[in-house]
Amino acid sequence: MAKRIAFFGPAGTYTEEAALRHDASAELQAFSTIAAVGQAVSSGITDEGVVPIENSLEGSVTYTLDLLISQPGLSICKEIVLPIDHYLMAKPGTRLDNVQVVYSHPQALAQCRNYLERRLPKAHQMASLSTVEAVVDMKASKVPAAAIAPRRAADLHGVDIIAQSLQDSPNNVTRFVVLARADHPPTGKDKTSICFSFDQDAPSLLYHALGEFAQWGINLAKVESRPTKELLGRYIFLIDCDGHRTDPPVAAALAGLARQASMLKVLGSYPRWNS
Amino acid sequence: MAKRIAFFGPAGTYTEEAALRHDASAELQAFSTIAAVGQAVSSGITDEGVVPIENSLEGSVTYTLDLLISQPGLSICKEIVLPIDHYLMAKPGTRLDNVQVVYSHPQALAQCRNYLERRLPKAHQMASLSTVEAVVDMKASKVPAAAIAPRRAADLHGVDIIAQSLQDSPNNVTRFVVLARADHPPTGKDKTSICFSFDQDAPSLLYHALGEFAQWGINLAKVESRPTKELLGRYIFLIDCDGHRTDPPVAAALAGLARQASMLKVLGSYPRWNS
Repeated sequence: MAKRIAFFGPAGTYTEEAALRHDASAELQAFSTIAAVGQAVSSGITDEGVVPIENSLEGSVTYTLDLLISQPGLSICKEIVLPIDHYLMAKPGTRLDNVQVVYSHPQALAQCRNYLERRLPKAHQMASLSTVEAVVDMKASKVPAAAIAPRRAADLHGVDIIAQSLQDSPNNVTRFVVLARADHPPTGKDKTSICFSFDQDAPSLLYHALGEFAQWGINLAKVESRPTKELLGRYIFLIDCDGHRTDPPVAAALAGLARQASMLKVLGSYPRWNS
Repeated sequence: MAKRIAFFGPAGTYTEEAALRHDASAELQAFSTIAAVGQAVSSGITDEGVVPIENSLEGSVTYTLDLLISQPGLSICKEIVLPIDHYLMAKPGTRLDNVQVVYSHPQALAQCRNYLERRLPKAHQMASLSTVEAVVDMKASKVPAAAIAPRRAADLHGVDIIAQSLQDSPNNVTRFVVLARADHPPTGKDKTSICFSFDQDAPSLLYHALGEFAQWGINLAKVESRPTKELLGRYIFLIDCDGHRTDPPVAAALAGLARQASMLKVLGSYPRWNS
């Protein structure tokens, strides 16, 4: 039986592209929210789930961080890094000069700001719930409209591509994670993601926490904070470090951190992406 | 002459509320992006600008962090913390039972998820560019619609409030900052915001950076990271610490940090908000 993989949909998103890149023979199933992907995996409806976690221009996908922090029974078992290429698409016969409205997700509109100012300065920008939803909104428009979306969305919705590589920065890549009920065995080139918090404010708690990694010479690939949602100014920290949680230095650092933190959750160890 | 204050508009947003709370006698001017507020202040079009920087549920407003990192000639001179109260509003005569579409900014829709699932399970959710834009979209709807927006937006647009305090969490507060061309003189109860980065990856750079604050016993209120936009995995760190940049311990920590970091920018010292 083919592996079942949930992804943050609808069909045609960059996340679907990442899921296909991960396992082209799997049975893919679209879910409309990141939380629903998490629930599908932890409850066993699917074997794995693919969600975006970080973009090189926009930063972290906070819904994914909050899911990893709060949902039990989920581990990261893989990371996938894909370049993001934005396409401008419209109903067949539409000319760029006539476009009066441009639909997309606000993040995609922001990533194409220079292009839009230069080529479509008079077009009205409209927010859609996703880049694929933007294609649906564009098709329903009564005035000449275009949508900024992934290439695959043009095929799925039968519309024409009228411009490509719209993004302002050539360094636009998104990191996706594959979620499963268990993480990945050691490969020798691994990363480990954790989150932790303290039940008090004190000057040097985070400093001492990072010291656990520094004393073993473990490189930190990422340090991020998210609100606890209880009190403004109280945070949950997320760290990605080099190594597998079963490597002795990482295991020692985690044990040291567990003694300091009021909450420590290992989100998973998985192979480092090699592009 | 009244002080001129730019705010992230349009009129009716929570940010306008924060600007009025800051200085009710000022001449307020709405700007349509956070970046435009920053430019208005740094170029002298207005004396000050008000933008949101952090929400207790959603986390940081990344546009504001990126503005502070990249725009010269801007300092934080004050912080303002306001509770966020979401109202459901509709055209006069609309009944809650008949609402088929709910418009709002995606963050506001997310913050009212439980209410929407319980009271409007069949209503279609539509993204708007801001909570106030949602009221405009709602008024233009051909089917019975509602918008989630601040109370003030109902008055400004002549629509009725049909429900209030929609937010799932009672701890929904937003922190705003007042931007000016200079920061605030010491008051004895201050905070300082800085950002810094390193031109290389190394295991313990952030650890040693935080050590500069730990050795002086300076409390860190916030540690955040943003992508440099050059390379996935390279970050700019943002820290809020207790004390004014002219207080000797803070000045010593900043001097120590300046020796370690490849970039260090003091974003401003300002009085701590006292609710």
